[in-house]
Amino acid sequence: MTKTIPVVEKILSANDRLAAENLARLNAANVFALNFMASPGAGKTSLVERTVRGLASKFRLAVINGDLATSIDAERAEVAGASVSIQINTGGDCHLDAIMLQEALTHLDLTAIDLLIVENVGNLICPANFRLGVHNNVLVASIPEGADKPYKYPGTYRGVDTLVINKIDLLPYVPFDMAYFRRGVELLNPGVTTFPLSCVTGEGVDAWLAWITAQVEARRIPQA
Amino acid sequence: MTKTIPVVEKILSANDRLAAENLARLNAANVFALNFMASPGAGKTSLVERTVRGLASKFRLAVINGDLATSIDAERAEVAGASVSIQINTGGDCHLDAIMLQEALTHLDLTAIDLLIVENVGNLICPANFRLGVHNNVLVASIPEGADKPYKYPGTYRGVDTLVINKIDLLPYVPFDMAYFRRGVELLNPGVTTFPLSCVTGEGVDAWLAWITAQVEARRIPQA
Repeated sequence: MTKTIPVVEKILSANDRLAAENLARLNAANVFALNFMASPGAGKTSLVERTVRGLASKFRLAVINGDLATSIDAERAEVAGASVSIQINTGGDCHLDAIMLQEALTHLDLTAIDLLIVENVGNLICPANFRLGVHNNVLVASIPEGADKPYKYPGTYRGVDTLVINKIDLLPYVPFDMAYFRRGVELLNPGVTTFPLSCVTGEGVDAWLAWITAQVEARRIPQA
Repeated sequence: MTKTIPVVEKILSANDRLAAENLARLNAANVFALNFMASPGAGKTSLVERTVRGLASKFRLAVINGDLATSIDAERAEVAGASVSIQINTGGDCHLDAIMLQEALTHLDLTAIDLLIVENVGNLICPANFRLGVHNNVLVASIPEGADKPYKYPGTYRGVDTLVINKIDLLPYVPFDMAYFRRGVELLNPGVTTFPLSCVTGEGVDAWLAWITAQVEARRIPQA
């Protein structure tokens, strides 16, 4: 297995170079970009839908969905009201990388977009190893996954900028030790911005939308 | 990225060779071995606990846990009554492979074991690409993940021998279209043996334990 290490390192540094290019393109067009990462079924797509529905009247939104095989998620984003939605089928690859995002960006008119949401492949490990070149990496945790996840997936919890704790409506029905979960998060990523919410009931969604709104508005070119 | 392909192919065929060696060792010792695969938080460890608790009086059990960083799962298996439990910390690797299992097997006295459960890393994509050399690959799906998972992770659903649908106690609290889920499973893996159950309430666990019991007993050397 040691034979692979140099190759992996080369891919990673090439990836970082492309990620920097992606970020420069987004900055030049004043687009604020988020990358949603999560386990399968934590609710990334539901959060995309909630976010698009909540902000479509304020901002011009685009969604890029990474998936192994289907376009179910991109269709859901369009139904919710995204101006543009693009599906990246990774053909089995377990994560998005900067070159996939670069290719997807060529299909978007960035001057016609304020906010870009990238929905990564459902995987709590591999996506965290590949920077895409966005402004904010968001981890979507969920209550039924269990409170031990920060301890078991430290690399991902350590590297993210923002944490959403989804499915809080299920707290009465599943054992979940919130203090234990929060302690793990705090050890790995002290003070990370956190939004507990439910995409089903809508509880907590307003605070999340207000935070994104502030990020997008901060990037707008001041009018003289 | 194409540069990596030959290396990956070499690793995979080396892996298959080692998997065949692992299977031969298990067969020589009449050990029945299962590999549990699932998303993070689908309930692999809870299923290990239920299985160990339900079968520890009948069989001599060993558990091998794959995890990125902690030994939480191995400790849970021991508390539940496994004769031996071994932790493989992958140090960030997103899956177990045959060489990791081979190394772990050197720490076990296979003549003192009837049933071996390998708990893979929580990941619905990568573990399915690496055979370990066990008799049965078990996918643990769970209700809160959502019913679209077979469609979105077809490689994993296609390749498994047995499907557990865990957390059926949450069916009243989350939207889950069982007919849609089952249709996806049937398309990819027609007739796969399926156990809907709840590790919390215990519903459905007896059928699962009866199935394992039958597999282990079928491998026992007939007494003259």
